[in-house]
Amino acid sequence: MDSKNLALLTDLYELTMMQGYFSAGAVDKECIFDMFYRKNPSHNGYAVFAGLSQVIEYIKNLKFSEDDISYLKSLNLFTSGFLGYLQGYKFTGDIYAVKEGAVVFPNEPLIVVKANIMEAQLIETAILNIINHQSLIATKASRVCFSSGGDIVLEFGLRRAQGPDAGIYGSRAAVIGGCNATSNVLAGRMFDIPVRGTHAHSWVMSFDSEITAFREYAKAFPDTCIFLVDTYDTIKSGVPNAIKVLDELKAAGQLPKSYGIRLDSGDLAYLSKTARSMLDSAGYQGAIISASGDLDEYLIESLKLQGAQITTWGVGTNLITSADWPAFGGVYKLAAEKGEDGSYTPKIKISENTAKVTNPGVKKIYRLYDKKHNKMKADLITLSHEKINENEDLVIFDPNDTWKRMTLKANEFTAEELLAPIFIKGACIYETPSVMEIREYCIQQKNTLWDEYKRNLNPHVMPVDLSQELYDLKQELIGKHRG
Amino acid sequence: MDSKNLALLTDLYELTMMQGYFSAGAVDKECIFDMFYRKNPSHNGYAVFAGLSQVIEYIKNLKFSEDDISYLKSLNLFTSGFLGYLQGYKFTGDIYAVKEGAVVFPNEPLIVVKANIMEAQLIETAILNIINHQSLIATKASRVCFSSGGDIVLEFGLRRAQGPDAGIYGSRAAVIGGCNATSNVLAGRMFDIPVRGTHAHSWVMSFDSEITAFREYAKAFPDTCIFLVDTYDTIKSGVPNAIKVLDELKAAGQLPKSYGIRLDSGDLAYLSKTARSMLDSAGYQGAIISASGDLDEYLIESLKLQGAQITTWGVGTNLITSADWPAFGGVYKLAAEKGEDGSYTPKIKISENTAKVTNPGVKKIYRLYDKKHNKMKADLITLSHEKINENEDLVIFDPNDTWKRMTLKANEFTAEELLAPIFIKGACIYETPSVMEIREYCIQQKNTLWDEYKRNLNPHVMPVDLSQELYDLKQELIGKHRG
Repeated sequence: MDSKNLALLTDLYELTMMQGYFSAGAVDKECIFDMFYRKNPSHNGYAVFAGLSQVIEYIKNLKFSEDDISYLKSLNLFTSGFLGYLQGYKFTGDIYAVKEGAVVFPNEPLIVVKANIMEAQLIETAILNIINHQSLIATKASRVCFSSGGDIVLEFGLRRAQGPDAGIYGSRAAVIGGCNATSNVLAGRMFDIPVRGTHAHSWVMSFDSEITAFREYAKAFPDTCIFLVDTYDTIKSGVPNAIKVLDELKAAGQLPKSYGIRLDSGDLAYLSKTARSMLDSAGYQGAIISASGDLDEYLIESLKLQGAQITTWGVGTNLITSADWPAFGGVYKLAAEKGEDGSYTPKIKISENTAKVTNPGVKKIYRLYDKKHNKMKADLITLSHEKINENEDLVIFDPNDTWKRMTLKANEFTAEELLAPIFIKGACIYETPSVMEIREYCIQQKNTLWDEYKRNLNPHVMPVDLSQELYDLKQELIGKHRG
Repeated sequence: MDSKNLALLTDLYELTMMQGYFSAGAVDKECIFDMFYRKNPSHNGYAVFAGLSQVIEYIKNLKFSEDDISYLKSLNLFTSGFLGYLQGYKFTGDIYAVKEGAVVFPNEPLIVVKANIMEAQLIETAILNIINHQSLIATKASRVCFSSGGDIVLEFGLRRAQGPDAGIYGSRAAVIGGCNATSNVLAGRMFDIPVRGTHAHSWVMSFDSEITAFREYAKAFPDTCIFLVDTYDTIKSGVPNAIKVLDELKAAGQLPKSYGIRLDSGDLAYLSKTARSMLDSAGYQGAIISASGDLDEYLIESLKLQGAQITTWGVGTNLITSADWPAFGGVYKLAAEKGEDGSYTPKIKISENTAKVTNPGVKKIYRLYDKKHNKMKADLITLSHEKINENEDLVIFDPNDTWKRMTLKANEFTAEELLAPIFIKGACIYETPSVMEIREYCIQQKNTLWDEYKRNLNPHVMPVDLSQELYDLKQELIGKHRG
């Protein structure tokens, strides 16, 4: 992503609006945009926030090349004054964000951009593109890993990803969400994440016989041998040939450190159990049985319930595309504008659809934990000047069903602010962790959730409440526009 | 894509297999791989083949950098001999392919790679990634455009695409499949395709009132004014304000050449009909009504059936992710290997699943047309030496239900070969058309299909048959492996 010039990775209307502000003399209008989403993908109980590192790279490298400007000029939409402005474009505002790998919930601002309207508007599309994609895949990976219950999960989706970036950044996100490794070599190099892979059917087909193919593979990779056993017939040919080659290696004192088989088609429950018993009878209790082929969190759960003897799961298409829910749906909405007196005027977008009415004003998020178990109780969105006192009782309420109230007792909860400064006056002040560190942070974050919030089907709904003050402000603005 | 080094955009097992062939002294083994797919996405009657231009760029630029080699070395999997081989890697084989924008069907080879096994194996993953993505989106776009029945369709999906490339190459594919333009400015620049866009809710929210926002927009863009009317209340506020501003412009003799409104939420059938009658009553029969918001081919069909007054459709998420079917499922399988005598030995992959048994041998595709109507009758896959004589009756049959036979009468049909040479001995001999030319070719291709093959629900199934000779060869090889 870094090597590509992404200044034009934006919707045309961002540029026409910028031209409009430029013509209206509103270049310096300071404002605040919130990036948030409205629904957890796949009906999950939470989402995993991912992609921040790429947003940071994008903002750092953002400038218009001569070619970009010539192209824009050729559209005959823009004034030369405006094109001159773009030539000097540089992001000089502030950005706050939740940490990458964090567990997040609908309607809370995950990224807050505070900048003049020209700068804030241009970056909308790329921020959404990057965060929507990676958060989607990280969340899906988290679901798959939950189903696998601690087994190894490998991301195998590159060939079915929606283009090269979807493969590359999808692998990154999958590891953040919990996968142990990827088949994608470029992602391995770019993000220093583990890579895995052995051989395909074509390897077996290219030798005169399956057993020759296995023997040759073992010769080339004496340390790790996973034989793909379904090219001709898994039970009649693949597994017996794998055992025969293991016997030969054992007899020669060359049994690999790590060995086993991979199943890639057919009835994985039946085949894995049959293969397990064949391998065990032959004395290979240590053989790995890995499986791949249209897996997802539902199928893994079902296979485990059936007693399938699989301990390594290669998950491709359904993970890398988040097949049952292929878009994250993050949005970027104007929340406030600075007036001439220097104070911010809150802004709201009304919608026929209640869930689409935005939360106005300059906001922050407090995450509230039960002190005794260190488990999360709720997120509370407040206005930026509000402070939570852990030494006093805190009453929070559902902003839609306001009779649903919860009291957190003084000294029995902790309140943690989620939004951290990333850019201040255009300078990045945030040090990006490595992908494996982000993965670790995501695991810690998930440890603060009870299993009821993590299960794949009908999870508990985490409260994301508004402070009384923010709630009142929202009602006032709705009344003003509709009343 | 061109600026990125994609040599490592591959699954690790391609490299481990290559190491295996290298160790086994099989570097020069010539073979043939077929790229094909098994099911049309979204239960469509055909697919649109797209992405060939990016495959060509990828192959042309393919080489391993010093950094790539160091990284591979660090994995401790590869011999220094093999890493030395990679340093000199260059694709020197032949590639044949169907033309980009062609209408294609399951199980026929869309790309045929004829090269030594090392070269052919490495490129599998990237070819699949690129073709799977773009063919998926082009096919989805073709469905959306079929529903829109000739209305303007705009691709608006960048913010929900699965990463930057999914947005960029997704726009390209959407235009190939029939979209008229995209909101994606970078795609517009890279592929010389039309871009479109006006303003967002934030534009309206950033002014003191909706009417001021519309007035300012009209000032900045005197030629084209599409006002987004749903920020506060479409019927009570948005449409009346749009009409008021149009009245003011008209009075000043400044009515834009092109003007109208955009609906982005709420009941699009009701709102468009109401807005149409308000605009007509005010004398703006020429006003465009465009709509966006979670559209897809099904919703467009339903809205048109309800008499919605929409003539421009902005389609985002569901198009750019092919939401109901987010992966194309193309595969790349070994079809033949050259023996020591120079002749090719056909190869087959058996599977428990009949549909997954591959078609062996060196093949080509004939497309058969009814001469009278110039409409397609069937595709016929043959072995490469077979020739079709248009002056003789041709009997073709379904390879699964072999009693389903069809006779094409002598001189009443034409037979066109589909696979064209793209690379010969590593040199590209194919001139890539522009995206708008490919789009035009796709339209011509769709004109050779009766509507029954193009409808979105339960389309006719196009026969893709095997010649008698190919059928017999396949049966013989199945018998050999399973008998």
